[in-house]
Amino acid sequence: MEISYLSDGAVPAVYLRGMDQDGGNRTEIGELGEFGLIDRIASQFQQPHAAVVRGIGDDAAVLQTGGDHYLLWSTDTLAEGIHFDLAYMPLRHLGFKAVASNVSDICAMNGKATAITVGLGLSNRFSVEAVDELYSGIRLACDRYGIALVGGDTTASPKGLVIHIGIVGQVAPDRIAYRSGAKPGDILCVSGDLGAAYLGLQILEREKRIFLQHPEMQPDLSKFPYLIERQLKPEARVKTVEALEKAGVVPSSMIDISDGLSSEVFHLHRHSGVDFSVFEEKLPLDQSTYDQALAFNLDPGTCALNGGEDYELLFTVRQEDWEKVVDLEGITAIGYATEAGMGMQYISKAGNVHPLMALGWQHGRSQD
Amino acid sequence: MEISYLSDGAVPAVYLRGMDQDGGNRTEIGELGEFGLIDRIASQFQQPHAAVVRGIGDDAAVLQTGGDHYLLWSTDTLAEGIHFDLAYMPLRHLGFKAVASNVSDICAMNGKATAITVGLGLSNRFSVEAVDELYSGIRLACDRYGIALVGGDTTASPKGLVIHIGIVGQVAPDRIAYRSGAKPGDILCVSGDLGAAYLGLQILEREKRIFLQHPEMQPDLSKFPYLIERQLKPEARVKTVEALEKAGVVPSSMIDISDGLSSEVFHLHRHSGVDFSVFEEKLPLDQSTYDQALAFNLDPGTCALNGGEDYELLFTVRQEDWEKVVDLEGITAIGYATEAGMGMQYISKAGNVHPLMALGWQHGRSQD
Repeated sequence: MEISYLSDGAVPAVYLRGMDQDGGNRTEIGELGEFGLIDRIASQFQQPHAAVVRGIGDDAAVLQTGGDHYLLWSTDTLAEGIHFDLAYMPLRHLGFKAVASNVSDICAMNGKATAITVGLGLSNRFSVEAVDELYSGIRLACDRYGIALVGGDTTASPKGLVIHIGIVGQVAPDRIAYRSGAKPGDILCVSGDLGAAYLGLQILEREKRIFLQHPEMQPDLSKFPYLIERQLKPEARVKTVEALEKAGVVPSSMIDISDGLSSEVFHLHRHSGVDFSVFEEKLPLDQSTYDQALAFNLDPGTCALNGGEDYELLFTVRQEDWEKVVDLEGITAIGYATEAGMGMQYISKAGNVHPLMALGWQHGRSQD
Repeated sequence: MEISYLSDGAVPAVYLRGMDQDGGNRTEIGELGEFGLIDRIASQFQQPHAAVVRGIGDDAAVLQTGGDHYLLWSTDTLAEGIHFDLAYMPLRHLGFKAVASNVSDICAMNGKATAITVGLGLSNRFSVEAVDELYSGIRLACDRYGIALVGGDTTASPKGLVIHIGIVGQVAPDRIAYRSGAKPGDILCVSGDLGAAYLGLQILEREKRIFLQHPEMQPDLSKFPYLIERQLKPEARVKTVEALEKAGVVPSSMIDISDGLSSEVFHLHRHSGVDFSVFEEKLPLDQSTYDQALAFNLDPGTCALNGGEDYELLFTVRQEDWEKVVDLEGITAIGYATEAGMGMQYISKAGNVHPLMALGWQHGRSQD
């Protein structure tokens, strides 16, 4: 299993072929998609390991570290120009959001976050004061969620700001929730409400366009407090995890909503091997989300289905657990799981059955 | 502790000041340096946390997870154009090196690595085949070190390739080695030999320059197998950690050599509160390192002191443990710790005493 630099002919190959190093065979990553790429990688790393309970493929990896609890471990990268725009995202909020979205991944395993690491890539545009601003938001989130910042690195970045967060947490083995446990008949639930972060983003993008044309104008965002806040300062649903524990319920499957409801329902479908029916009339929308969708000539239901960054929890519970869940604050049943083959269905308010589409929320891939 | 987007005036400030967001006060990160910046951040995150044994400031964070062993956790970012150059670094080797350098951080705590996560930022220059090449090296390293790849993400990158590795491992509480435990009189030891990776880099940089001027010429690297391999395929010193355990020795302090010997000696000095004397004649250099340094008109000792990326282990042992260590393969005593205030000293072969200088190995910060 040695790799020897000098015996594999890599030097001349590299020098000749330039820096893409794909040897003439070139499949664009876009052809596979991000999830296809992850599947491809995961299939190469299937060797069992004594410490690994669950590897690639859920919201967090699950490791056995010898104690009573499983270790949960997740990681996430945010790049300027891809995942955030500093034209309207204050660094303090960005720091908060970066932590909150990672805590959300631990919540999605029904776990409790413990600690984070922060890796920063910084171009020379960023000063010490800018880094302080970012960390002030990180610190707020750490205090809010009771987690420690225990490490990280800062390096030069070839372009802009890149934030890499690692997070660990823990969960008792009898309380862990995977994406894979849903059974036909289970009730599909969601915390909070949907689509607001997406509409907040649309407002901020519109104001940015106006500002670029008329720099003397200051945007008035005071009409959209909830939508803006949901985009710039999302919260992880720690309270939902706590409420489920207090109610004595372990979700049969769970995931957090980062790419959009429909995309996440498809993940539960794929991992659990069941189909789902989702009802438009059940989708929880804040009134301001509904109103602003119409103002943008968007279908509110579509915003709820395909808008990203809600960071709500999507989960299934067994029917016999439903009575323990029904009265929990901020939990809405939006559909149910069916036998595989029944179809992924979206039932409109008018009662029409449409195929559920996983459009999700794709970030662009930049040109070098 | 709420942060409210709408009440802190952040929107107009951001829009007016552009995207640097430092509010007119601007301290360049270069003024603080990477270590100064880490100290500044660390000072803001000193709250005790039940799960945290040791936070920011060592080669890995140390967490208590309820079992017999401590959890070790480290993280590292490698950016194209800053930390590696794909003109001469094959992606397979890069994958291997990225993992090995992180395993080295776990070794530096006297621990054993368990699992990694890999976060990739990819610009559209990179194909699926290129990603496969990178992962083939990651897989080789995972097999070699007996670790599992358990997660990660791939995202678009604003420029080039960015690799972020997270690693966890474990160590028994009575075997952990921090940077902070050296006492006066302790013997300073290093594994393997020094400076070879730095000279390998100089050769590759020279060959790249020649190739750019004469693309028809292929570099002949077969004269420098050891130096090239040390640069492109470093190994983590897992065997040194195992040998120390077998010998029944716990180093009183330890760190791995990524930025250069002298820089790491200064870390031990700073964390342990002792000074060090290092002897030029004791520095372990491979013959090819020595010869090639002279061929480049470089001082071999300086290459050993300040060349980066050796990934050897630098550690101290108590004098009474020395007889257990002296016969271990590949361990060299290069100096000893002295009382604080005695001075950081480098004693030349001629017996002259020079101040030890921590030049280290600084990566450039790019312009946006």
